[in-house]
Amino acid sequence: MEVSSISYIIDTLFALFAMVLIIFMVPGFAMLEAGLVRTKNVTAVLTINTLIYCVASMAFLLIGYSIAFGDFGNDHMSKWAAFLFQMAFVGKVVNIMSGGVSERAKVIPLTIFTVIMAAIIYPLIVNISWGTNFLKGTLLELNMYDLAGSTVIHSTGGWALLAAILIIGARNGRYTKDGAIRVIPASNIPLVTLGALILWIGWFGFNGGSVGSIASKENANAVALTILNTNTAGLSGAIMVSILMYLKYKKLDLTMILNGALGGLVSITAGPDLYGIYTPILIGAIGGALVVFAVSFFDRLKIDDPVGALSVHLVNGIWGTLAVGIFASNGSNITLLGQIKGIFIVGIFAFISSYLLLFIINKIIPLRASHDEEMQGLDVEECGLEAYPEFKRAF
Amino acid sequence: MEVSSISYIIDTLFALFAMVLIIFMVPGFAMLEAGLVRTKNVTAVLTINTLIYCVASMAFLLIGYSIAFGDFGNDHMSKWAAFLFQMAFVGKVVNIMSGGVSERAKVIPLTIFTVIMAAIIYPLIVNISWGTNFLKGTLLELNMYDLAGSTVIHSTGGWALLAAILIIGARNGRYTKDGAIRVIPASNIPLVTLGALILWIGWFGFNGGSVGSIASKENANAVALTILNTNTAGLSGAIMVSILMYLKYKKLDLTMILNGALGGLVSITAGPDLYGIYTPILIGAIGGALVVFAVSFFDRLKIDDPVGALSVHLVNGIWGTLAVGIFASNGSNITLLGQIKGIFIVGIFAFISSYLLLFIINKIIPLRASHDEEMQGLDVEECGLEAYPEFKRAF
Amino acid sequence: MEVSSISYIIDTLFALFAMVLIIFMVPGFAMLEAGLVRTKNVTAVLTINTLIYCVASMAFLLIGYSIAFGDFGNDHMSKWAAFLFQMAFVGKVVNIMSGGVSERAKVIPLTIFTVIMAAIIYPLIVNISWGTNFLKGTLLELNMYDLAGSTVIHSTGGWALLAAILIIGARNGRYTKDGAIRVIPASNIPLVTLGALILWIGWFGFNGGSVGSIASKENANAVALTILNTNTAGLSGAIMVSILMYLKYKKLDLTMILNGALGGLVSITAGPDLYGIYTPILIGAIGGALVVFAVSFFDRLKIDDPVGALSVHLVNGIWGTLAVGIFASNGSNITLLGQIKGIFIVGIFAFISSYLLLFIINKIIPLRASHDEEMQGLDVEECGLEAYPEFKRAF
Repeated sequence: MEVSSISYIIDTLFALFAMVLIIFMVPGFAMLEAGLVRTKNVTAVLTINTLIYCVASMAFLLIGYSIAFGDFGNDHMSKWAAFLFQMAFVGKVVNIMSGGVSERAKVIPLTIFTVIMAAIIYPLIVNISWGTNFLKGTLLELNMYDLAGSTVIHSTGGWALLAAILIIGARNGRYTKDGAIRVIPASNIPLVTLGALILWIGWFGFNGGSVGSIASKENANAVALTILNTNTAGLSGAIMVSILMYLKYKKLDLTMILNGALGGLVSITAGPDLYGIYTPILIGAIGGALVVFAVSFFDRLKIDDPVGALSVHLVNGIWGTLAVGIFASNGSNITLLGQIKGIFIVGIFAFISSYLLLFIINKIIPLRASHDEEMQGLDVEECGLEAYPEFKRAF
Repeated sequence: MEVSSISYIIDTLFALFAMVLIIFMVPGFAMLEAGLVRTKNVTAVLTINTLIYCVASMAFLLIGYSIAFGDFGNDHMSKWAAFLFQMAFVGKVVNIMSGGVSERAKVIPLTIFTVIMAAIIYPLIVNISWGTNFLKGTLLELNMYDLAGSTVIHSTGGWALLAAILIIGARNGRYTKDGAIRVIPASNIPLVTLGALILWIGWFGFNGGSVGSIASKENANAVALTILNTNTAGLSGAIMVSILMYLKYKKLDLTMILNGALGGLVSITAGPDLYGIYTPILIGAIGGALVVFAVSFFDRLKIDDPVGALSVHLVNGIWGTLAVGIFASNGSNITLLGQIKGIFIVGIFAFISSYLLLFIINKIIPLRASHDEEMQGLDVEECGLEAYPEFKRAF
Repeated sequence: MEVSSISYIIDTLFALFAMVLIIFMVPGFAMLEAGLVRTKNVTAVLTINTLIYCVASMAFLLIGYSIAFGDFGNDHMSKWAAFLFQMAFVGKVVNIMSGGVSERAKVIPLTIFTVIMAAIIYPLIVNISWGTNFLKGTLLELNMYDLAGSTVIHSTGGWALLAAILIIGARNGRYTKDGAIRVIPASNIPLVTLGALILWIGWFGFNGGSVGSIASKENANAVALTILNTNTAGLSGAIMVSILMYLKYKKLDLTMILNGALGGLVSITAGPDLYGIYTPILIGAIGGALVVFAVSFFDRLKIDDPVGALSVHLVNGIWGTLAVGIFASNGSNITLLGQIKGIFIVGIFAFISSYLLLFIINKIIPLRASHDEEMQGLDVEECGLEAYPEFKRAF
C-alpha cells in the first residue's frame, strides 16, 4: 500500500459511512410522517417517501449532479463515493416538502415535482452555494457559510412546502368556519419516535460527512466536533421544548419534543464545525423554542402543515444560517450580512421556482385529491392498499 | 504504526462496517415479512426470522465455515472479521425461504432445516462458487462470476423455497375451487416499508463488502462503484414497477414497488463492480418488471408465496447472473455460458438437496400447521403470543 | 498525509462508527419497551426514553464527563470522538432502569433522577472502574476487569431499577391477593423484535468500541474477536431460551427468546476480548438460562419488572463479571476475587446511592402515578397523546 493512497481510501470509506447514515434518513422520514398522519393516509405517505428517494436520486444521477458540480470528478476520494454522498442529500428537500402537504396532495404530481426539483432547481441552488463551476462565483457572489444545508437543504425544502401549501390549501375540516383549529392527532406514536430518532442518527452522517474529509488530524477533529455539536443542538432543542410544554400544559407532548430535537438539529446544520462545544446548547434551545412558537404561528395563518415541517425546516433553516453570522462571524468570508444575503437569494429562488413549477403541474394534474378521496383517505384511491386493514378503527 | 499494517487495519474496519449493515438485514427481513402476513401469523414470522439468524450463524460457526473456506485464515484482514462478514450472509438464504412459506409452515421443522442448510448445504454451494479449497476446482469447474450472490444466496434461497412450497402447498383459501385467486392483504404497510428500506441499506454492505478490500485506490473505487450500481438498480426496479402499476391499475401498489426495488437489488448483485454507471438502470428495470410478471405467473401455477420471494430472489437471482454474462462477458473468465452453467449446477444442487432434506424432515415433524392452527393463526399455537393483543380485529 | 497521523484518524473514525451504533440503541430501547407495555402506556415509555437520552447526555457533557475522566483529553484519537463514545453509554444505565418501572412511574421524577445519575453517580462508578484520575487508584483498589460494562453499565442500571421497584411497588393488579401472578401481555411484538435486534446490533459498537483502538494489527484482531464473541453469546442466549421454552411449554415465547439474546449479550460484555471463540457459547447459554429462571424468581418475590430488565441486566451483569474471573483469570490483574470485589463495591454504591436519591425525589415529587392515572394509562395524563388513537381496543 502506498502512503499517498491512504487518505484517498480513508476518505472514501468515510464518505460511504456518511452516505449510509444519510440514506438511513429515508426510512426515518417515512416512519416519522407515516406516524404523524391518520391511518387512512399512511400508505400514500409511505409511497411518496419511497418514490421521492427513487426518482430524486435517479434524476440527480442522470442530470442534476452535472448541473451542481460539473462532472464526476473528485481528487481526494473516489468520485463514485463523492457522488453517492451528494445523491443521498437530494431527496431530503422533497421529503421535507411532501410531509407538509400530506393527507391531501396526490402522489403523481408530487413525483413529477420531485423529478424537476432534483434534476434542476436543487442542483442550481447547490451550484451557487457549494459548487465550483457554472454559476458559482460568476452570476452570483454568494458567500453564505452553510456547511450541511440549513439553507440549501432545509430552507429550500421549507420554501417549496410553503409554495405548495399556498396552492393546495389546508386539509378539510382542519380550520372550522368559526375560526377554531381542529387538532388531528398522530396515529402511531412509536413510528413517529422511531422516525425522528433515525433522522437524528442520520444527521451525524449529514453534518459530519459535510466536513468533506476525515483524513488529517485537523479534519478528524473537525468531523468529531461537528458530530458532537450536531448532537448537542438536538439535545438542547428537545429539552427546551420539554420545558416549554411542561410549563404551559403540564404535559410532555412527545411529537412536539421530537420536532424540537429536529429543530435543534436543523439550526446547527449551517455551522456545526464553527462553534465551541457550549454554543450549540444556545442555538439548539432557540431552535426548539422557535418550533413551538412557529407551529402556533402557522396555525393562526391557517397554513396547514400536518407534520410541522415549516417550523422545523424553514424557520430553523433560517435561524441556523443566521446563527453562523451571529456566533461565528469572522468579518471576512463569514459575515452576518453574507448569511442574510444567502438566505434571501436562495429563499426567493427556491420559493418562486417551486411555486411556478407547482402552479404549472397543478394546471395539468391537480395536486389536490378530490373531496371524496380526502374523506375516504388517500390510501385506497392512490395505492389500492390500506395501511392497517385488519385493525378496527375507533372512529 | 507500521505502514504494512494499515491495509490490514482498514480492511478489518471495512469488513466490520459491511457486516453490521448485513446483520441489519435481520430486522429488515423480519419487519418486511411481519408486515406482509396477516396479524394472526406475525409473531410466528418474527420468531422464525430471529431463530434463523441464531441457529444459522451458530451452525456456520461450528461447522459450515470450515466446509466453505477450509479454516479461519485470511491474510489481508483479521480472520475474525472475515468470518463475521461471511457469517452475516448465511441466514439470508433461509430468510428468503421462510418468508415464502409463512402463514402455514411451522417454526420447529423450519429451524431444523436451517441448521442443516447453514451447516452443510449452503457451505458446499459457497465452496464451489467462492471457496479456495476442498471441492472448488477439483470436482467442479464452476467459473460463474457472482460477486455477492445473485445465485449463491438469492437463487439458492429461492430454490429452497420452491422445494418447500411444492411440499407444503398453498395457504388455505388462497386459491378457490373455481380457480379464482383470493388476495390476502398485508397487515402492516409501515413495517413492510421499513423492512424493505432497511434491506436496501443492508445491501450496500452486502455488495460493497463483497469486493473484499477497500485498501487501495482501485479497490476503493470498486467498492464505491459497487454501492452506486447497487443503489441504481434498486431505484430502477422500483421506478419500473411504479410505471407498470400505474399504467395497468392507476394505483401505486407500494408492496409491489418495494418488491420491485428488491428485485432490482437482487439482479445487480452478481456483478455490481463490472458495469458502468448506466447499465444498472437497465438491469434493475428488467428486474423490477420480472417481479411484476413473475408474481402473476406463480399465482397462475398456484404456487403460493405470500411475500413474493420467488419473484424477487429466484427469478432475479437467475436474471442477475445472466446479466453478467450479457453485459460484462470478457470472453475468458466471464462468459454467458459459464454463467448459465453456474445457474444450472447451483440450482439443481440447491433444489434437490433442499427438497430431499425437507421431505425427510416433513416425514418426522410435519412442516405444515394443522388446518385448525392455520385458521386460528400460528401465533397462539407456536409462540403462545399474539402480535397485537390489544387491537380489535376488523375481521 | 503524515504516517504519524494515520492511527489518530482511523481511531477517530472507528470511535465515531462505534458511537453511531451505540446511539442507535436509543430507538432500540424505545421500541423494545414500547412494544412490551400496554398500549395505554406506550407514549409515556417513548417519552421517558427520549428524555433520558437528552438529559443524560447533556448532564454528562456539562458535568459528568469531567468527574469520570478528568478532562477532554485523549492522545490516540480526537478528544471529541472520545467524548462522544463515552456519552453514548450514559443514558443506557437509566434506559435499563426506566423500562422496569414502566406503566406506573412518572416521567418527571424519572427525568430528575436521570440528570443526577448521569451527572454524578454514574461518572463516579466509571471513574473507579475505568478512569485514570480522581478516585481511581486512590480511594479504592478496584481491579475488576469489565471491558464494556457488565457491571459498570448493566448491573448499575439493574441496581438502580431494584431500588426503584422497592420504592414504587408493583403495577396494580399484577399480583392478586390470592397470590396469583397475572400475565400482562406485550402489546406490539414487531416493535419488541425490532428493538431487541437493534440493541443487538448496537452492542457491536458498545463492546467493539470499548477495545478503544483498532489502529494496530493486534487491536484490529481484538476488535473483531470482541464483536464475534459478543454476537456468539447473543446467539447462544437466544438458542438456550428457545430450547428451555420448548421443553417446558412447547411454545416458543418470542419475548423470552429475545430477552435470552439480550441476557447473553450482557453476560459477554465484561470480557468479550478475553475468550476464545467457543467459550462465549457457554457463557451466553448460561446467561439465557439465568433470564428464564430469574424472571420466575423475581415474580415469586413480587418484584414487578414489566420488561425483564432485572433478569437481563442485573443478573447477567453479575454473571458476566464473574465469568471473566472464571474463564479468563490470569492470577495477576484478573482474578475471580477481584471480579467479586468489583461486583460488590459497585453494586453497593449503585444500589444505595440510587435508593437514597429516589427516596428523596419521591418525597418531593411522587414517583408513582395515582391509581386513576395508572388505570387510565399514563399516556393521556403525562403526555396528552395516545399512542394509537385510531385503533379500537379489544379490551
